[in-house]
Amino acid sequence: MQQGLIPNVSVDCVVFGFDFTNLNVLLIERNFSLNGIHYADLKLPGDLMRLDEDLDTAAARILKENTGLSDIYLKQFKSFGSPDRLKRKPHDLEWLRLIDHPEEHVITIAYYSLIDISEYGRSQLVISDNAQWTPVQEITDLVMDHMDILRYALEHLRVELLNKPIGFELLPEKFTLSQMQRLYEVILGTTFDKRNFRKKISSMKYLIPLDEKQVGVAHKPARLYIFSNEVYLKTKKDSFDFSV
Amino acid sequence: MQQGLIPNVSVDCVVFGFDFTNLNVLLIERNFSLNGIHYADLKLPGDLMRLDEDLDTAAARILKENTGLSDIYLKQFKSFGSPDRLKRKPHDLEWLRLIDHPEEHVITIAYYSLIDISEYGRSQLVISDNAQWTPVQEITDLVMDHMDILRYALEHLRVELLNKPIGFELLPEKFTLSQMQRLYEVILGTTFDKRNFRKKISSMKYLIPLDEKQVGVAHKPARLYIFSNEVYLKTKKDSFDFSV
Repeated sequence: MQQGLIPNVSVDCVVFGFDFTNLNVLLIERNFSLNGIHYADLKLPGDLMRLDEDLDTAAARILKENTGLSDIYLKQFKSFGSPDRLKRKPHDLEWLRLIDHPEEHVITIAYYSLIDISEYGRSQLVISDNAQWTPVQEITDLVMDHMDILRYALEHLRVELLNKPIGFELLPEKFTLSQMQRLYEVILGTTFDKRNFRKKISSMKYLIPLDEKQVGVAHKPARLYIFSNEVYLKTKKDSFDFSV
Repeated sequence: MQQGLIPNVSVDCVVFGFDFTNLNVLLIERNFSLNGIHYADLKLPGDLMRLDEDLDTAAARILKENTGLSDIYLKQFKSFGSPDRLKRKPHDLEWLRLIDHPEEHVITIAYYSLIDISEYGRSQLVISDNAQWTPVQEITDLVMDHMDILRYALEHLRVELLNKPIGFELLPEKFTLSQMQRLYEVILGTTFDKRNFRKKISSMKYLIPLDEKQVGVAHKPARLYIFSNEVYLKTKKDSFDFSV
């Protein structure tokens, strides 16, 4: 066991990235052999906490180690501590022993993070050799209880998207309404009629149209918009409207 | 260190109880002497996790040990893991050593719970000798980082109250609109004009008036209402109304 680590507490990150087509999740390939069997499966980026770290610091470190990025939207959403979470597949526990981690009950504090992939370029972002972006709908199996963690993260992201303007973290600074519609569609797992969607977002005073259009596209260039957090904070109301 | 405990992970519970006047929090008095100084300060109910427990199980156990109740609204809301959280006051760490707990960095997973005090009776509920209900506005100091935990719990409760019908967990099954108004006022820290409040809740189809009035009150008895979760689930909409 490495010095300075907390043996029973880890932090895992569900890193979402949007590429105008899919909602992707950053996964780490775990490659190892055990009793003559080779395993190559996928996990969320995560690590044991260090003794001198806060939870948020640990999450930011894990994000930095795996993407090279700092100052990214990062939110703690739930902790997971089922006693069997490392024992669902026998080779998960064996793998933990291989990496010198003898604890059988690790509580993990889960964060999710939102990244605009287009800003950095897909390959530029993934700095560890064994990291990869995978469209969320293609992820069917992950190590330990990481599928549960991903499901909760997605559920949390959907609720947040319906209540707060967090979707803009996944879009470039300037975006088109079609890009925004696609983002809402892939996260909510639905499709919207274009006219209905425009009507629904027409009340968002914080969506500011620019005198600027897309460049270098094959189709008719669309108008660009920005999200104004300042306008959002000024115009938002409690959804219950209980203010007197 | 007692066998079967996880030394670095605890669960703390913010137990809210409403008594028609105040929003109260269940606190545990910690009485101990150290180097000739006697300490009597207050903490949230909490304990280290056991190796065979899930997080939710640990929270339910702590609630049961301190109130005698099971099957109560209990929600994980945030984990706290600042490296200095046990070291803010020197005697906190000394106290942990007294109770045979040598770890200096404990991550705590915090839950909050909602209890209708009136149903059980104030004294009946508090089963441990050193437990007490304290009105939330009178709580100015707690051990370790428990003031932070309480503040986050209250913030979380306010947001939930504005978005979900959780307030009814704090009311008896049958309640008056004045009791409901008082509940919203004490949690949100505001006052409502009676007519405005009635107007605002008139859209809540899940508030069902009964052909029944209060009994044994000095004033004119008011009509009783129940909350129907069934009607709520049928009539609720996403606050964003993005459904197609």
